[in-house]
Amino acid sequence: MKPIKTEDINETLDPQDWEQTRKLMHQMVDDAVNFTITLRDRKIWQSMPEEVLKSFRTKVPQEPEDGNVVYQDYKDMVMPYAMGNVHPRFWVWYMGSGLMSGAIGDFLASILNPNLGGGNHSGHKVEEQVIDWIKEMVHFPESSSGLLVSGGSMANFTALAIARNVKAGYDIRNEGITPEMANKMVVYGSTEVHSCNQKALELLGMGTRSLVKIPVNKDFTINIEALKVQIVRDKASGLHPICVIGTPGTVNTGAIDDLNALADICKAENLWFHVDGAIGAIAMISNMVKPLLAGIERADSVALDLHKWMHMPFEAGCVLVKHREAHKKTFSLIPEYLAKNTRGLASGEDWFSEYGLQLSRRFRALKVWMSLKEHGVKRFGRMIDKNIVQAHYLGQLIDENDVLELVAPIGLDIVCFRYNPGGKSLEALNALNKEIKLQLEERAIAMPGYTTLDGVYCIRIAISNHRTTNADIDDLVYHVIAIGQELES
Amino acid sequence: MKPIKTEDINETLDPQDWEQTRKLMHQMVDDAVNFTITLRDRKIWQSMPEEVLKSFRTKVPQEPEDGNVVYQDYKDMVMPYAMGNVHPRFWVWYMGSGLMSGAIGDFLASILNPNLGGGNHSGHKVEEQVIDWIKEMVHFPESSSGLLVSGGSMANFTALAIARNVKAGYDIRNEGITPEMANKMVVYGSTEVHSCNQKALELLGMGTRSLVKIPVNKDFTINIEALKVQIVRDKASGLHPICVIGTPGTVNTGAIDDLNALADICKAENLWFHVDGAIGAIAMISNMVKPLLAGIERADSVALDLHKWMHMPFEAGCVLVKHREAHKKTFSLIPEYLAKNTRGLASGEDWFSEYGLQLSRRFRALKVWMSLKEHGVKRFGRMIDKNIVQAHYLGQLIDENDVLELVAPIGLDIVCFRYNPGGKSLEALNALNKEIKLQLEERAIAMPGYTTLDGVYCIRIAISNHRTTNADIDDLVYHVIAIGQELES
Repeated sequence: MKPIKTEDINETLDPQDWEQTRKLMHQMVDDAVNFTITLRDRKIWQSMPEEVLKSFRTKVPQEPEDGNVVYQDYKDMVMPYAMGNVHPRFWVWYMGSGLMSGAIGDFLASILNPNLGGGNHSGHKVEEQVIDWIKEMVHFPESSSGLLVSGGSMANFTALAIARNVKAGYDIRNEGITPEMANKMVVYGSTEVHSCNQKALELLGMGTRSLVKIPVNKDFTINIEALKVQIVRDKASGLHPICVIGTPGTVNTGAIDDLNALADICKAENLWFHVDGAIGAIAMISNMVKPLLAGIERADSVALDLHKWMHMPFEAGCVLVKHREAHKKTFSLIPEYLAKNTRGLASGEDWFSEYGLQLSRRFRALKVWMSLKEHGVKRFGRMIDKNIVQAHYLGQLIDENDVLELVAPIGLDIVCFRYNPGGKSLEALNALNKEIKLQLEERAIAMPGYTTLDGVYCIRIAISNHRTTNADIDDLVYHVIAIGQELES
Repeated sequence: MKPIKTEDINETLDPQDWEQTRKLMHQMVDDAVNFTITLRDRKIWQSMPEEVLKSFRTKVPQEPEDGNVVYQDYKDMVMPYAMGNVHPRFWVWYMGSGLMSGAIGDFLASILNPNLGGGNHSGHKVEEQVIDWIKEMVHFPESSSGLLVSGGSMANFTALAIARNVKAGYDIRNEGITPEMANKMVVYGSTEVHSCNQKALELLGMGTRSLVKIPVNKDFTINIEALKVQIVRDKASGLHPICVIGTPGTVNTGAIDDLNALADICKAENLWFHVDGAIGAIAMISNMVKPLLAGIERADSVALDLHKWMHMPFEAGCVLVKHREAHKKTFSLIPEYLAKNTRGLASGEDWFSEYGLQLSRRFRALKVWMSLKEHGVKRFGRMIDKNIVQAHYLGQLIDENDVLELVAPIGLDIVCFRYNPGGKSLEALNALNKEIKLQLEERAIAMPGYTTLDGVYCIRIAISNHRTTNADIDDLVYHVIAIGQELES
């Protein structure tokens, strides 16, 4: 290739006019602060008009555009039509509300822009410290290994990969799944286990069928006796059980599996004990929840999410593993161009890329580091307590209202209920509650979630929101009943 | 559980004093702008003193701390000891330099904080548009599917998972690797193929052994004839070839495989053609490189990185797949609590979580969207051209200096060379060049990379840096020679 002379060798991607950019960024800060202060007064969600949708169908821009114009595009087309999960009345799915110290951390991380794949630099030490702090928070030993990852899906995938490699009993990393082991390995979780664990096992080559789902009790926790029976049956039929997944805080109803009982089984049967604590594990910092999580410290690995009940901006998940060597042995791969030095930038014993799928990694530790310093772990714990109190306050309002009923026991901060004025078929009630849910959303009153439990459609309120007040809960109940009555009349 | 009354139900994680926070954020903006303007005057890298290291060993903070104090901690302990890859003279490994419009996008993404797992909101449309733009940039058809991911490792993993599931010839997602298929599937790449592809196959259950490495030509491109022979041999011995990985821009030397020849083989042998374009694919927007990438449009899937030669802040990778249905069939999994609606937030045909491992996903599209609008794709193309011109300028200086020699042909913007005054053994030269490399780093002159090619240690300059000038290259050459002479005397 003959390099041709470029038009302007001194051109860079830095702003052409620094003072204009500086001014614009100050405007963004004021807008961001005002946006967050006035969240409650904004529409929680609104659908995009056709002209906005149309703007997202234009071709890739060829020539530069003024930064102010780009920002105006953002303000016109993106900001007003966001998901709404920063709003005090967002209770859909299970996600956090974000926080300013986290956004600040993300901004600084992108300005500094280190690669957390490895190396001897401050970002690496910050991530090590954040992982140490998380171990401390969930009572995992200092000797454990850990990694910040994109979220619960990747945390569970990482842990299950290690479990597979450790429990296969041969060098499966090198050999792959052999004819002898094919279709033999099985993993246990309850019927309420999160779907990402199934996806992980499919990707790991074990297939959907390798996830054996154990029935739940009435409170949606795993049936311990059924699990014991299943393991015996599977071993007898020549299968090779490798792992049990315990869930402290299921996504549907917040049910907490009996972790000590699962740890006992894993010990007796020599299985890897993995805890999918995406929702609940971090609640170890809540005085209210901590006793319910007894046994988590006995797990071989824990997956957890900091962008849920710790409200970090996406993405911030974490996996902790009690067997550092096994963890590293599953992922470490050092080609020539990554060979380490004993001095300089490319030194350091443990690189984070040796503990996970990713090689290049964002400095996601910074937002966690800054937020834990600014708020302190006790305040985060109180935020969890508050959400639980609010869930039970909602439960009380449901009890007091004849036309409302709980569909499942309140688990953590998750309330599943429905409007039921009596005298209606299951189908009619399902349709009615679905419509109530949609109208709450379309009238921008609140964003409730939904799920189906044993065929019953329910409005599902997951209050992992540090901005929610009791008045928000009052309003929710008022409007559910009002819309219900309106739809019936 | 009996919820206990919390101390202060109105406490949130929002700042206690908004005006103080606003003021602090304005300070951060000024600092970030000044930091970026003065990058060249700062030490590119320095090791952390013991007192800084010690500060990273403290326990998790229990109580709140003033935001100003936290920011000061960042300025004292984190900022000065960063990786340095935003500096004009950083040429290690292969990563981008970051850019202000990207940091702005990351900040706004964290303020708005939507979850890009799915749903009907603006973030989803922005990501769709960004993926459409990337298709346009690399000449992939509009009907292709795509996903923004953490980086090249995940992009390759995603593509190889689809290739495995499509080419296995049975429902491997459900069945897993069966005894009949175990140890049969093989994937081809050159000996220069990136290590993350090996990691991906190990995780996918196929083992290290499933990656068959084909020898390279003198220019480090894959030997096409050797590949053909190997496929014939493998088929004859009962193996089940599924995929060929082509690399346009190897990480060691920037070598570009003959993509059209690989596409021909894949067509003839009915194999999935995957292009690991982490380094090179985005160079389709460079007039200089585009002709060398002919055939990329024939791939079944392409992995690429926007945090490399597009300089987006970490993380920003992308995978494009020509077979939307196969892509979705590999990853889509819709449990009850994610069931879609026809109206409201939870509507929409395609959710991004149906196209990858992650369920919760950061709004990483925003920084790409804002940056492409602000700079236009032509400027990004010129930045690539500039780096190639600079690589050849360095090559010219190496040619002109008797004590320097190229160790490999210049590939894209990657130059592998060494200091060789003559009369020294291979071992002595390796040790000498390693020391030169470390001293460049420790004296904060520049950050070069390094690799070993056929036993030869080389200083490896990967100029994926939009801030590098020709004067930086001059200085590099001057100091390599000066340090070399100093070490010899």
